[in-house]
Amino acid sequence: MQRTVFFVSDRTGITAELLGKTLLTQFPNAEFRRRTVPFVDTLDKARAIVAEINETARQDGQRPIVFSTLINDDVRTVVTSANALFLDFLADFIGRLESELGLVSSHALGLSHGMGDELAYQKRMDAVNYTLSHDDGVNTANYDRAEVILTGVSRTGKTPTCLYLAMQYGIHAANYPLTPDDFPDRMLPKPLLPHRAKLFGLTIQAERLAKIRHERKPGSRYASLDNCRNELRAAETLMRQAQVPILDTTIMSVEEIAISILHATGLIQRVKS
Amino acid sequence: MQRTVFFVSDRTGITAELLGKTLLTQFPNAEFRRRTVPFVDTLDKARAIVAEINETARQDGQRPIVFSTLINDDVRTVVTSANALFLDFLADFIGRLESELGLVSSHALGLSHGMGDELAYQKRMDAVNYTLSHDDGVNTANYDRAEVILTGVSRTGKTPTCLYLAMQYGIHAANYPLTPDDFPDRMLPKPLLPHRAKLFGLTIQAERLAKIRHERKPGSRYASLDNCRNELRAAETLMRQAQVPILDTTIMSVEEIAISILHATGLIQRVKS
Repeated sequence: MQRTVFFVSDRTGITAELLGKTLLTQFPNAEFRRRTVPFVDTLDKARAIVAEINETARQDGQRPIVFSTLINDDVRTVVTSANALFLDFLADFIGRLESELGLVSSHALGLSHGMGDELAYQKRMDAVNYTLSHDDGVNTANYDRAEVILTGVSRTGKTPTCLYLAMQYGIHAANYPLTPDDFPDRMLPKPLLPHRAKLFGLTIQAERLAKIRHERKPGSRYASLDNCRNELRAAETLMRQAQVPILDTTIMSVEEIAISILHATGLIQRVKS
Repeated sequence: MQRTVFFVSDRTGITAELLGKTLLTQFPNAEFRRRTVPFVDTLDKARAIVAEINETARQDGQRPIVFSTLINDDVRTVVTSANALFLDFLADFIGRLESELGLVSSHALGLSHGMGDELAYQKRMDAVNYTLSHDDGVNTANYDRAEVILTGVSRTGKTPTCLYLAMQYGIHAANYPLTPDDFPDRMLPKPLLPHRAKLFGLTIQAERLAKIRHERKPGSRYASLDNCRNELRAAETLMRQAQVPILDTTIMSVEEIAISILHATGLIQRVKS
């Protein structure tokens, strides 16, 4: 039996979806039909979504579940009147924070995915531009402006991790690939030498790397397990000798790699300020 | 008086931070010192964070606030023993969902920012690669594989929006700039003509565009308000004639633009499935 789940928000609904999905993954045996309704910021939109929830309850033969991050009290009051289990991610917590802090909350719309502080937003967009123009070893002359430079062999996750760091945290992240040409010298490629303190190495298990490379270039020497093993061994030796920190990304998502780098490098402190 | 806030998670802490920050923005007059502690997945790490919270309470002269997305019951029990206001984003809701669904939850670690479903993760990474190699009008021969093609004049937000759609939703998003060369013909550039149904136009107010362009190329003709006005007018006319939907991104963040596109195009249905 399928349950319908609504994610309802004044703004993008991203936070409601994230937390709601985390909760739903705790019920792997249940089936959920999901519907996100963002930008519910007027009473008319609130009434429309109530009508939709009630109609869904009728069709499903059971009440839907509503995950809400609605800030506006009037809009929320309307939506809570729907025939649903209403789980609110904000109102209860705001009440408890008001008591704890001895302050009244502003009831302002969530800023977490809006432009919010324009300066901070501009910094994120600048970082995305920087990362795009310093991907894959290009424009090394501008590494002075980099906050972190990821390195490692091809397909260890450098590019998506840099983009994530830039987009979400406004970090100027460059990346530089280690290729077989770099190994005979037994030292880091020249463009990296002046920036050793900013370097962060990514590695991965050979079997996983071979699988990823085979998807891109099936049957190639580049993708062969032997070649992957050799490249990884040489790259790890190089990075260890240069005292570059190394992270194994084999079972990590881009988000997990990014968070690990922020904490390992101390960049997390810069992001907070 | 500053309050210390901890975001504590078994995994990345991204969800705890997002929701916690949204809550904190409701108290613009309070000052918060923020500390994120990800990957708290053992009892030892739990005890270490308790010691840190208690020491912070002593130093601050008031108890910290802890936002938690801890799934593991034993770890959470340890952390709740700290001298803090403990706000849990999961446990209470899981209890209410268990009652509603008549099911026991799996108490599995949150999958929302892990690799989770490997296939879905791979799709996101493939989309990032596709978007990177179809940025700014290159590789138009592969537009058959695009799910959406953003167009508009330079600096309307096409590239970061494509990257966000790819990274977060696994959407194959390409983008193609409209430049002054395209306007005399009064029709869409040739590479776009076979893909009109996938096109989505971005526009922006001329004043804002001039400001963004001035930051990149100060004092240039490209950035002048007159030129921005002319380009925008010509591009909007072109897109309207071709019946391309147009979104004004002037006061929107990348997240808001992306969500609006997902809903306006119906791609949101594909993302859910």
